[in-house]
Amino acid sequence: MNVFVSRIFSAAIIAVAACTPAQPAPAPVPAPAAVPARSLLAERYRPAADRIVAAALADSAAWHRVARLTDTFGHRLSGSRSLENAIDWILAEMRRDGLENVRGEPIMVPHWVRGEESATLVRPRATALRMLGLGRSIGTPPGGITAPVLVVASFDELTRRASEVPGKIVLFNVPFTSYGETVRYRSSGAIEAARHGAVASLTRSVASSSINSPHTGAMRYDTAVRQIPAAALSVEDAAMLGRMQARGEEVVVTLKMEARTLADAQSRNVVAELRGAERPEEIVVVGGHIDSWDVGTGAMDDAGGSVAAWEAVRLLKRLGLRPRRTIRVVLWTNEENGLRGATGYRDAHAAELDNHVLAMESDNGVFKPSGYYMAGGAAALAVTKEIASLLSGIGATSATEGGPQADVSPLAERGIPAAALNVDGSRYFWYHHSDGDTMDKLSPRDLNECIAAMAVMVYVAADMPERFPRATAADSVRRRVPR
Amino acid sequence: MNVFVSRIFSAAIIAVAACTPAQPAPAPVPAPAAVPARSLLAERYRPAADRIVAAALADSAAWHRVARLTDTFGHRLSGSRSLENAIDWILAEMRRDGLENVRGEPIMVPHWVRGEESATLVRPRATALRMLGLGRSIGTPPGGITAPVLVVASFDELTRRASEVPGKIVLFNVPFTSYGETVRYRSSGAIEAARHGAVASLTRSVASSSINSPHTGAMRYDTAVRQIPAAALSVEDAAMLGRMQARGEEVVVTLKMEARTLADAQSRNVVAELRGAERPEEIVVVGGHIDSWDVGTGAMDDAGGSVAAWEAVRLLKRLGLRPRRTIRVVLWTNEENGLRGATGYRDAHAAELDNHVLAMESDNGVFKPSGYYMAGGAAALAVTKEIASLLSGIGATSATEGGPQADVSPLAERGIPAAALNVDGSRYFWYHHSDGDTMDKLSPRDLNECIAAMAVMVYVAADMPERFPRATAADSVRRRVPR
Repeated sequence: MNVFVSRIFSAAIIAVAACTPAQPAPAPVPAPAAVPARSLLAERYRPAADRIVAAALADSAAWHRVARLTDTFGHRLSGSRSLENAIDWILAEMRRDGLENVRGEPIMVPHWVRGEESATLVRPRATALRMLGLGRSIGTPPGGITAPVLVVASFDELTRRASEVPGKIVLFNVPFTSYGETVRYRSSGAIEAARHGAVASLTRSVASSSINSPHTGAMRYDTAVRQIPAAALSVEDAAMLGRMQARGEEVVVTLKMEARTLADAQSRNVVAELRGAERPEEIVVVGGHIDSWDVGTGAMDDAGGSVAAWEAVRLLKRLGLRPRRTIRVVLWTNEENGLRGATGYRDAHAAELDNHVLAMESDNGVFKPSGYYMAGGAAALAVTKEIASLLSGIGATSATEGGPQADVSPLAERGIPAAALNVDGSRYFWYHHSDGDTMDKLSPRDLNECIAAMAVMVYVAADMPERFPRATAADSVRRRVPR
Repeated sequence: MNVFVSRIFSAAIIAVAACTPAQPAPAPVPAPAAVPARSLLAERYRPAADRIVAAALADSAAWHRVARLTDTFGHRLSGSRSLENAIDWILAEMRRDGLENVRGEPIMVPHWVRGEESATLVRPRATALRMLGLGRSIGTPPGGITAPVLVVASFDELTRRASEVPGKIVLFNVPFTSYGETVRYRSSGAIEAARHGAVASLTRSVASSSINSPHTGAMRYDTAVRQIPAAALSVEDAAMLGRMQARGEEVVVTLKMEARTLADAQSRNVVAELRGAERPEEIVVVGGHIDSWDVGTGAMDDAGGSVAAWEAVRLLKRLGLRPRRTIRVVLWTNEENGLRGATGYRDAHAAELDNHVLAMESDNGVFKPSGYYMAGGAAALAVTKEIASLLSGIGATSATEGGPQADVSPLAERGIPAAALNVDGSRYFWYHHSDGDTMDKLSPRDLNECIAAMAVMVYVAADMPERFPRATAADSVRRRVPR
């Protein structure tokens, strides 16, 4: 997951009222009764949902599939051979599963490469620092950049100390609060530091726990400001440099990065379908993103979500639950550093977006789900609550306004209701974009519950007699997170 | 902390009844009443204890001292320049503090050096593995050792699969349960693997949480078995190799280690005193170990415990609380890979061991304390309970049989009661012997509570009219953990 999805984790980001920002919020839609007997939708689909949940929990095949994928291909950064090899394998497996219309839809993606990199503390003590260059950053000259470090705790402090910045490496030593609050320093730190004359930008890793593990992620430049190299230090090393400065010690660091951006590379969105029995032209999209950062194996972010979506549809097929509408698995490429898969899907399928009835993505990690998020207006939320009531067997009955996830945000902007899983996020930012994002962080049981929740949502949305409701002019729908 | 102290964390290690193993357990000593008014000792020392606790909690000077020590000198492996530089600094600071008889007592210590090292997965996928060589291990030939890997989950499985072992690298992929249970594979894995013909031994890191962080620690050889190189893989990488083997994939690894053991090096135990006013020849020892592994900065293990002991005595001095007996701070060298500081102290002070009334070490991390451990017999435990009652203000009133910590175990073997802090151990094995053992893991408040608890214990033990009771022939005292 990248910066887009931060608002699920952050109450601090202001809602973007996309349709009718000047109107007052609509009156709340009366919640459907909790008793299944009074919810026609829930009553109709409970037998199917019970079958889906029972089958999803019956084995650990999905977990082993994520393990095989991540163990065999490793991390999958856009432009890498490993990403394309993983996509080839998935396409072949999907065909063996008997999914329909299996294909890779071509997408050109950014091709950023890390190269060799290091950060070394020169003074007051010579020692290697744990670092990861930030995605999209430029590199340093071959000999590196050696400069005194100015440690600041906020953009405000940077501005107050602007006169000290020229010629320095700025370190944003900002403790984790929420992702939304903290990731700003990773995203925009290089712009703000360069604006005041810094020669490089360092960021304390955006992580809620650390064992000296640096965390990467995307940064950006502003065309009006000089580009400077940007990297994340581990929480531990950033805190140490902060303590050294607080004691009045001169802190000097050498930063070396070979990072560079090559010509765009060919990649693919993975697409496969369970064709609808009655209205195959109407489409429910369910997916995750198949690319990852170039650290760890991207098991949590987002091989788990990708396989969960895929397995949800395979499960429906295995149970003989072919819905009225088509369910389309989409495993987007290039979520992490470009979102080209998501915008490319939107553009390639522009002619059928009106027939997209729902788009669901899992990109918060396949941890224990408590229910759904919905970005789609009051009526969509009401239906989501009914569907969530079908998950009482796994305690995942919540339905909350939230999302959209990054890859479905271009669809949500076109008015398509966007669903997501609400999962236990307590450990997500321990491993996010780090070497610790590996298979052992996922439990078969939690993954199976996510698959069950995704399968129930997309099956009901694809089969229910009425189309899944879209937002009306009266709805204030959050469509996209400010970048 | 090293393998010695494992039994505090492990219920699985059998007690060693040192004095009278054949006798039945003694009848329990009646516990002193919990009401302070009925405990003469607690009544007498409550005013002093209250002053100590209040003063210990009043600032964060101790935390800043640990930070300065670890930030300035980094890790402190036996034989390293950084260890001796740190000792020089501590001795100078102790003199500035006005402690008495400040000195470095010379000790020859093992000098193991890691050198460059790596583990690389060759098949089924070429990728670097996260590893740390184990302390005392030999190195590999310069070109490394490349061999198929046999993953086992226990010594029993190794024995069952003995015919597969020759020529292989054995990986003990044992999930963390307790330290005592799991550390056996780190300590003895190379012996057992070599016994069956393995060419190297890998161990899953002994860690209860991981962000792809390898954890080192001591290993040993048996003179009757060929020496082979030994290293720890991160939990993540060990688990991955286990999954690969379970899928029937051939796993091949190249291990390169330059590790070697040089001639013994000169080090020192740090000793300083608050001389007793009436019986200065009677001694209460309080300390931690000043050496660390060569990863992280050894903040938790055991700079924090060392500074806590030192600060406890500095605090008493500052409060004008000079006890009847002498309190001696001892910061042992070489706890991690030799225990030479501990045995050297015992031997250098053999003539005065009869006058050692109590020995206390903090080596479980200076996390929030809940009370004391005592290894010293029933009467000592009863006194400990009285002293613990003085810590009601910080909720640290428990007193439990346990210990001794590693550096006081040679004293405990001579019958000296050994005290330790009982602290929140929930995160200890997240960071233990890894790059994550750094200053940010310690909180000023928790550290201050540890200082308070240590200061109260040693002040009362040094000042109480009667000598702190030793074990009698009726006591079954655990004196040392089997290595």
